[in-house]
Amino acid sequence: MPESSLSFEEKLDRYADLLVRIGVNLQPHQRLQVSAPLEAAPLVRAVARKAYEAGCRLVEVAWSDDALTRIRYESAPRDSFEEYPHWRVRASLEAVERDDAFLTIHAADPDLLAGIDGELVAAASRVAAQAQRPVSEKVSGFAMNWSIGSMPIPSWARRVFPDLSEEQAMARLWDAIFMATRADRPDAVGAWQTHLANLAARRAYLNERAFSALHFRGPGTDLTVGLADGHEWVGGAWPARNGRLGVPNLPTDEVFTAPHRDRVDGTVRATKPLSTRGALIEGIEVRFSGGRIVEARAARGEDVLTRLLDTDEGARRLGEVALVPASAPVAQTNLLFLNTLYDENAASHIALGRAG
Amino acid sequence: MPESSLSFEEKLDRYADLLVRIGVNLQPHQRLQVSAPLEAAPLVRAVARKAYEAGCRLVEVAWSDDALTRIRYESAPRDSFEEYPHWRVRASLEAVERDDAFLTIHAADPDLLAGIDGELVAAASRVAAQAQRPVSEKVSGFAMNWSIGSMPIPSWARRVFPDLSEEQAMARLWDAIFMATRADRPDAVGAWQTHLANLAARRAYLNERAFSALHFRGPGTDLTVGLADGHEWVGGAWPARNGRLGVPNLPTDEVFTAPHRDRVDGTVRATKPLSTRGALIEGIEVRFSGGRIVEARAARGEDVLTRLLDTDEGARRLGEVALVPASAPVAQTNLLFLNTLYDENAASHIALGRAG
Repeated sequence: MPESSLSFEEKLDRYADLLVRIGVNLQPHQRLQVSAPLEAAPLVRAVARKAYEAGCRLVEVAWSDDALTRIRYESAPRDSFEEYPHWRVRASLEAVERDDAFLTIHAADPDLLAGIDGELVAAASRVAAQAQRPVSEKVSGFAMNWSIGSMPIPSWARRVFPDLSEEQAMARLWDAIFMATRADRPDAVGAWQTHLANLAARRAYLNERAFSALHFRGPGTDLTVGLADGHEWVGGAWPARNGRLGVPNLPTDEVFTAPHRDRVDGTVRATKPLSTRGALIEGIEVRFSGGRIVEARAARGEDVLTRLLDTDEGARRLGEVALVPASAPVAQTNLLFLNTLYDENAASHIALGRAG
Repeated sequence: MPESSLSFEEKLDRYADLLVRIGVNLQPHQRLQVSAPLEAAPLVRAVARKAYEAGCRLVEVAWSDDALTRIRYESAPRDSFEEYPHWRVRASLEAVERDDAFLTIHAADPDLLAGIDGELVAAASRVAAQAQRPVSEKVSGFAMNWSIGSMPIPSWARRVFPDLSEEQAMARLWDAIFMATRADRPDAVGAWQTHLANLAARRAYLNERAFSALHFRGPGTDLTVGLADGHEWVGGAWPARNGRLGVPNLPTDEVFTAPHRDRVDGTVRATKPLSTRGALIEGIEVRFSGGRIVEARAARGEDVLTRLLDTDEGARRLGEVALVPASAPVAQTNLLFLNTLYDENAASHIALGRAG
């Protein structure tokens, strides 16, 4: 990675500024609702300062703690997993009504649930998903301006850099995040304005050409992806229904669209491992015919891959095809982040199941 | 301080157990509502484990962050201090309705508001007090079983031990807190059961004797405190209206009652400084006549003391007289904690203004 001339504090300051001005595009009359793990306190404080300086009325933080989540799974009565703090849902819906902006700092311990009874996890996830549905619908419908960013936490940094000390791993992951989000540039906001204009120009070009198919070639890959009739390329800035133009994910380097349901044929060899459900699947090779995966192999984790593909009928079809330039900063870090927010911006890719 | 044979983890474990079983006296069907600063995460996690092991249905934590509070004062628009997260109040009232137990971990930076505009602080305090009034009334009326404990945070520890490194100061304050709360005893819960029985016996003795006055003598002190007609001595365990017998403050070594409004006469020389409104008042000497302070001096901070006494008519009268045995563990630490939760349990004392 190239060196930045900025100090850690200067980069953190720019990163916070990007999340507030580019990510959520906070307006002076808005409150800001932040969700973050306890370990993200240094970033949350920097974000709060930037938000207030931008005229924010109130920054409210919903803190979460992975360790408490794990303690619950380990120690709570087995019949208590229907309990949920429903007031959180009501508070979020009220915040949407009040036209607040929302920022999530996402950082998770990849091994958080190792050894925990899957039934309990499934029960708690079901209760949470059901309770949160009214909020999820507001989010996916862009009822408000929202954005998601990330920051290093020790458990995650150790998994990305297993050979380094915790301190070194944290420093390396911070550097990678600052680089990938352009927070290491002296004029970070200016760099993003240029970047978003480039993404918009690419979207416009692809939409104008309205290609009927994409052809991917590489070692082990010879794949034709038909594009849906009337498909639209999206990515980059996104207008929320309240009129603010924000960027839902930082970083974001992809433009993506919907593949044709049946016109996907050929072979793919994945260039990167897939981290999912607490497992790492490596050396993935699949063959598509008529839009469906008809053969699948993996050098490691093939059983997890097979179960994934058998989840439901949609799991063997493509939900998304995305283009990412090799010059994207995430790609240039040459890291596997084990975090979709980053890894999906590292290379052109296809995604199985429902488009997301 | 005498050495304990227990490790830090063993003492933390016992402290958490005391807060759950002795402090809030959590019942198996209850949820536990915890309020705590971010820095208290290690104690909150230990408390959560103990609570779940006691059958708790759900531990919910309202985290607070002094640094964010200060950032708001420094950076937020001056006309935004009427904003308040009212959903917090509704969530607390709902929790009272559901018969949840409440635990507050109180730890504050004594210098948090240094240099901040007093008008902003007053505005925010007024808005918060008004919004929280329905909850405060439930608390002071013991509608639910609640308790307050403390834990060291770096900003506080550095003030108590200004000559030590932060690490040493934290370790010393932890030791003092473990000792004062009896968490350093192998059978800490048993020690509290004995202690609470002793406090109950002292209360019963004092109530049976129904003394008409107390006479305090010491260097510079010769004070007669008449006791109110029909006064009742209280302290130690306290029954909440939901029937649970908890201990509102950990530690607690005092029994206290209401003085007579007019029958307080003589001189007092305080044995300890008074930390209030961000200032330290030292060498306090006052003279009472007919229930009112008629003369007041201090070696340091006399102006703050004078303003304090002139707050309102009640400020020159006694609101509480409390007896604490010299054998109380807080007294034996020989520390000034700069935290009323501790300092009021270090020695027999009188308190000005309304009884609390």
